[in-house]
Amino acid sequence: MIGVWSPATLRHDPSAEIWIGLRTPGTEVAERVARIRDAVPLTWTEAEEAPWDVLTSVHSEGLLRHLREVYAEWVAAGYPQDRVVPYVFPTPAMLGGLPGRPPSAVHGRAGMWAYDTMTLVGPGTWEAALMSASAAWTAALKAPTHGSAYALCRPPGHHATRDGYGGSCYLNNAAVAASTLRRTGFAKVAVIDVDAHHGNGTQAIFWDRADVFYGSVHVDPGAGWFPHYVGFADETGGGTTLNVPVAPESGDAVWLAGVTRLCEAAQAFGAEALVVSLGVDAAADDPESPLRVTREGYVETGRLLGELGVPTVAVQEGGYHLDTLGPLVAATLRGIQSPS
Amino acid sequence: MIGVWSPATLRHDPSAEIWIGLRTPGTEVAERVARIRDAVPLTWTEAEEAPWDVLTSVHSEGLLRHLREVYAEWVAAGYPQDRVVPYVFPTPAMLGGLPGRPPSAVHGRAGMWAYDTMTLVGPGTWEAALMSASAAWTAALKAPTHGSAYALCRPPGHHATRDGYGGSCYLNNAAVAASTLRRTGFAKVAVIDVDAHHGNGTQAIFWDRADVFYGSVHVDPGAGWFPHYVGFADETGGGTTLNVPVAPESGDAVWLAGVTRLCEAAQAFGAEALVVSLGVDAAADDPESPLRVTREGYVETGRLLGELGVPTVAVQEGGYHLDTLGPLVAATLRGIQSPS
Repeated sequence: MIGVWSPATLRHDPSAEIWIGLRTPGTEVAERVARIRDAVPLTWTEAEEAPWDVLTSVHSEGLLRHLREVYAEWVAAGYPQDRVVPYVFPTPAMLGGLPGRPPSAVHGRAGMWAYDTMTLVGPGTWEAALMSASAAWTAALKAPTHGSAYALCRPPGHHATRDGYGGSCYLNNAAVAASTLRRTGFAKVAVIDVDAHHGNGTQAIFWDRADVFYGSVHVDPGAGWFPHYVGFADETGGGTTLNVPVAPESGDAVWLAGVTRLCEAAQAFGAEALVVSLGVDAAADDPESPLRVTREGYVETGRLLGELGVPTVAVQEGGYHLDTLGPLVAATLRGIQSPS
Repeated sequence: MIGVWSPATLRHDPSAEIWIGLRTPGTEVAERVARIRDAVPLTWTEAEEAPWDVLTSVHSEGLLRHLREVYAEWVAAGYPQDRVVPYVFPTPAMLGGLPGRPPSAVHGRAGMWAYDTMTLVGPGTWEAALMSASAAWTAALKAPTHGSAYALCRPPGHHATRDGYGGSCYLNNAAVAASTLRRTGFAKVAVIDVDAHHGNGTQAIFWDRADVFYGSVHVDPGAGWFPHYVGFADETGGGTTLNVPVAPESGDAVWLAGVTRLCEAAQAFGAEALVVSLGVDAAADDPESPLRVTREGYVETGRLLGELGVPTVAVQEGGYHLDTLGPLVAATLRGIQSPS
């Protein structure tokens, strides 16, 4: 297994996020990268920048241009805030059936692409998101010859949809990896998402696709957890989506039963390659989820994923407890590593 | 002309609003009511509470229940914020085509009904919104026998859609008045909206209705003004919508040409009764718009509206410059007063 990262991913470092109107310190901090690199004993390669057509295989031109340009536009407009923070959102409730058109003013337009107030765009956000996605792309190109590859993606990606960003995610790194594996010849690709939260973005991107399976084990959004609106067991898309929501406080037994179901489903689907959305925020110490997965649980999670025996790209998602983040990623990757 | 108000409308007094992530003092304050009552020489009647079926003629049960119950639920959930402030919004960009379902957790669910971060729900918000809408209802019942009636509605209403609230509006008072006039026998009702901002809620509520005309003169949303997404001249609905966006800095001449167009259109439509969404925030001193309408402009606005010669309900919308707010409302109402 090789590791892919980019120093540009450090350039996104939001000073805060806005949650129910409160300015709170963000947990998706640049230091996560150093903590993971220190703990994960891989040979590290720097990502090459992904071509535009790789990005547009997953995201709309509109979202990409917004993320690339909005910060400069925000600063030029002189808004009294150090980050792009939306305040009005074109929900169905707002439009009430009216057509609506993209706002001219950047402070009005921001909510067209951002779907929450937590996921702020500052200096360096585009460069970091671009190179985070590029790490996933580079890893997907290298995985077939190395058996497996790990992309130290950051910011994470699985909440980013084709047209939208939120949940601390800007570009969908796992979707970029899956799309790249498809484009390089793997007929069927499975994405297994073991982040503590449902990957609504990845699910939405591949919702109608028969060639990409999306499976996720995550804390039940019905118990009050992000992304709130989706991630339920009855969401099966065209038959290639499988959600296993688990109750808050669930530990290894429930978690690993979920991972096992996802692996079995990916195998039944006939996956020729695998993308793992590797969050470790289901850990007991993590501040962002109420799950209780142990280090041993992550070792076993990795082993189950590795048993699929197909070329695998592990893409970093969440994990916010700085002291245990790196060791948990390392523990999971040990199992994923191709035995070849 | 009689005046209708309710002391319950004072019970909503948000300490702040959240705009692009900044907590700023709100301008839609309870003191507006006193300033208007002091300046407007009408006989004042207290509103009676509107029956539920009046409210559901304009809004969904879901929105009404949300507004009625969300604050108690918010407090019970122990959220560290003194008002209901949404943070995640089910925009098309978020859902990316997924079905989505109403969130169980109140902090997730709030953004399903609120479409911005400015329009907070605190103690008394429901009672104030209910009695604001009730003032519009009471005024609409009384207008036919009095020639005209003025409802001192507050919070304002024209940004509230069937399913959503935003722009400091919770229930659509003007739509309640128009719906009531329709239900009491007027076959064709016109709503003319002279608030400085486009009334996206009223437009959306009556978009497909051949029996209710909606016309609005307002600062061009294309110049960067709320509601950003709608209010453009090419939005004509089923032929009974007319928007006259005007450029920032426009003064009396442009403004009154717009009012004249709206009055002519309402007459051509065959309006048998009129609702005026009476904001005075197009005034030069107002902090919430870049328009420059003078006191004389408001006198003439009222005269043009009064010339329509049909039973009229004037419903208070915006107007935030406390020192001139009351006199401007009084100046406009003088012209609207039925000459009969």
